[in-house]
Formats: sequence, C-alpha cells, structure tokens
Amino acid sequence: MASKISRAVIKRLPKYHRYLKELMDKDIKRISSKELSDIMGFTASQIRQDFNNFGGFGQQGYGYNVDELFDQIGRILGLVSEYKTIIVGAGNLGQALAKYNSFQKFNFNLQALFDIESHLVGLKFGGAEVLDTRQLKRFLAQNSIDIAYICTDKDAAQLVADTLTKNGVKAIWNFAPIDLKLPDDVVVENVNLIEDLFTISYFLNGAKK
Amino acid sequence: MASKISRAVIKRLPKYHRYLKELMDKDIKRISSKELSDIMGFTASQIRQDFNNFGGFGQQGYGYNVDELFDQIGRILGLVSEYKTIIVGAGNLGQALAKYNSFQKFNFNLQALFDIESHLVGLKFGGAEVLDTRQLKRFLAQNSIDIAYICTDKDAAQLVADTLTKNGVKAIWNFAPIDLKLPDDVVVENVNLIEDLFTISYFLNGAKK
Repeated sequence: MASKISRAVIKRLPKYHRYLKELMDKDIKRISSKELSDIMGFTASQIRQDFNNFGGFGQQGYGYNVDELFDQIGRILGLVSEYKTIIVGAGNLGQALAKYNSFQKFNFNLQALFDIESHLVGLKFGGAEVLDTRQLKRFLAQNSIDIAYICTDKDAAQLVADTLTKNGVKAIWNFAPIDLKLPDDVVVENVNLIEDLFTISYFLNGAKK
Repeated sequence: MASKISRAVIKRLPKYHRYLKELMDKDIKRISSKELSDIMGFTASQIRQDFNNFGGFGQQGYGYNVDELFDQIGRILGLVSEYKTIIVGAGNLGQALAKYNSFQKFNFNLQALFDIESHLVGLKFGGAEVLDTRQLKRFLAQNSIDIAYICTDKDAAQLVADTLTKNGVKAIWNFAPIDLKLPDDVVVENVNLIEDLFTISYFLNGAKK
C-alpha cells in the first residue's frame, strides 16, 4: 500500500502528527476535519482525502479521536520502532545534529559519529563518541544501523555513501551538497542548505523588481 | 515575470547552478540539453521547458554556453546582490549555520547572532558576535537586514518572527518546528529536520513490510 501514496501526502503526515501532538498537550480529545482544517491551513476535503489514502480514520458525525489518530499516523510514519543512527562527518553540522534532542525523543538513537580528523576522534557529542572513519566498515559489520546522516563535505560524500550501502545501511539523510548515486532500495532524503537559501534570494530578488 | 514561475522550477534552478559550476570547474565551455540531461537526471525536454520560463538561453545547434548560463541563472536566483543576514538562536544549530562557509561564498553575510542566554552573549561564531535578543529591535532599526535565520525553540519562534517582520526583515529561514504566521510579503523557507527524519522512517518502515 505504502508505495502508492504520493510523496506530497507523505510529506504532510509529519505535520498532522505535530498538530495532533499539540492538541493532545491541550487535552483535546476529539476534532472535526473542519476544526483541523482551521488550525492547519489545509482544506477539510484535503484532510479527508489524505486520510482516505490509509483507509480513513474518522467517524461520520463524530470527527477524529485525537489520541487514536496520533497513534495511527505515528504507526504509518514508522515511529513505533527504534532506529539506530550514525553521523558521518563530525564537523559543525554533524555535531549540531548529534546534540539535537528531538531525534532521541522519537527513538532515533545515535550510536556513533565518524570523522577522519584525528582531533575529533574520541570526543563525545550528544552522548555518542566520534570514531575514526577508517573504522566505519568494521563498525557496520558489528552493529545494525538503520539510518546514516552524511555531514561530510561534497567530495567525500559519495565514497561514504558507497561504504554505507555496501555494508547494509538502508537509509541516508544527506546534508552534503551533491546528488548521491545510490542503489534503488536505499531510502534517501537530501537537505541542501545552500539551495534553500538560493530559493530565498530568488524570491527576495523578485520582490525588489 | 518571477511570480508566474512554478515553485518546482524555482527549486530546480539552484541545482542547475550547482551542475554548471562543476562544468566550469572542469573547463567545459559548451553543453547541449541532452548532455546536461545525462548528468543531471532531468529529461532534455524538461530542461528546455525550465529555461523557456525565463526566455530560453540556448541556441539551436549550439547548445548552451556554460559560463553565460551559469551567470544568467545566478542573476535569476538573485546571487548578484549581497544579503545581510542574522541568526536568532545561537544554540548548536545556530552556531553550526554561523560557521557554514558556503553562505559567505555566495554573499550571504552574517552580521550578528542573537540569544537570550547570557553565557552565549559576546561569543563569536563564524566571525559574528552573539548579541542579547533584547537588543534585536534596536539592532534592526540601525542595520538593514535582508534575511533572518530562526534557530530558536518552537515556543520563541513566533515572537521572534513578529519582531523581525515588524522591523523590516523581508525574508525568514525558519528552522523551528512550527508554521509561522507571517505577513504575505515576507519570504519564508522552512527546514523541519524532524519531519524530514519522519519521511525516512516512513519509507524504511514501508520497506520492512
């Protein structure tokens, strides 16, 4: 089923999850698609369509049970498992991601960082140790890792990705400004900060004209 | 003109810019849409369509002049101006962004960071000083700032955004996990790390089934 859902719908699921969590924090137990629409800025029809992709969750005349809907969307997002993660590239960005508390809250648990710089090896960030990148292959043979965050520079990223995927890593979160060549069965999400910033300058520039 | 271009096209422009830079670094002077298609993974027809949005750049039977195309796309992306930036929230992520060299290379020049934590005030990251957030309004009155990166926690982000937009900032790069309410003429790009990670767990989970 999952493979038929459009990427746009999938990208909206974390947002539903976030808003439902806020409702739970306010002790709200039930919500209509109209009310959800008002707070999220999607149309009520869009919301119903999105949920219909997963069989629909609401009950006519009742709306949605907030707790249940939160759990169901969490399950669809795979948030019931623990994910073991590593960070390759322990520079500024790698360190910042290691210290980002929210990941652990959702069971994305950092096992180690890797770097080629000897002055970083042995340091700890977010409770995990920096290991030498030359140990990456051996580490992957001994530890089952679900997701690797690549925070190396552009030139190292493809080689790192190859080592990761050849040694069983099935998901990569890539922060290096390069389009990685990966096997088809590997999940990849790219965060390209500079391209994001260029989108801002595009619109700023358009506004100036 | 700019307002009619679809967001999908705009999001591809930085990628063209990046690949053209790589061609220039390899001293390649001319490229056909077919060759560009091969290295970028877009179809040649897609590439021609994208460029036609801006009047088209190529010449029949010649292809594209790499240097010229790079310059033209750079101009469309607004990369001919300098952008003065600030970072609000000088925690791990704010610090990492301050130290990210690529931004400065493209003339996104960091003027200051802001934080409410007194132990951070006065420190320097990426050559810019951390000021007290209580000085933000005064700073904005005295300095023309183009883009603010919001790296505060969720609870502070909307208040910060209000202060920014009321004091002349026209573009916000938001890293806080919240949908900001902003005036219509303010440019905003959101980076929601946890939602990105949930997309990965969604696909990983689907693959496991």
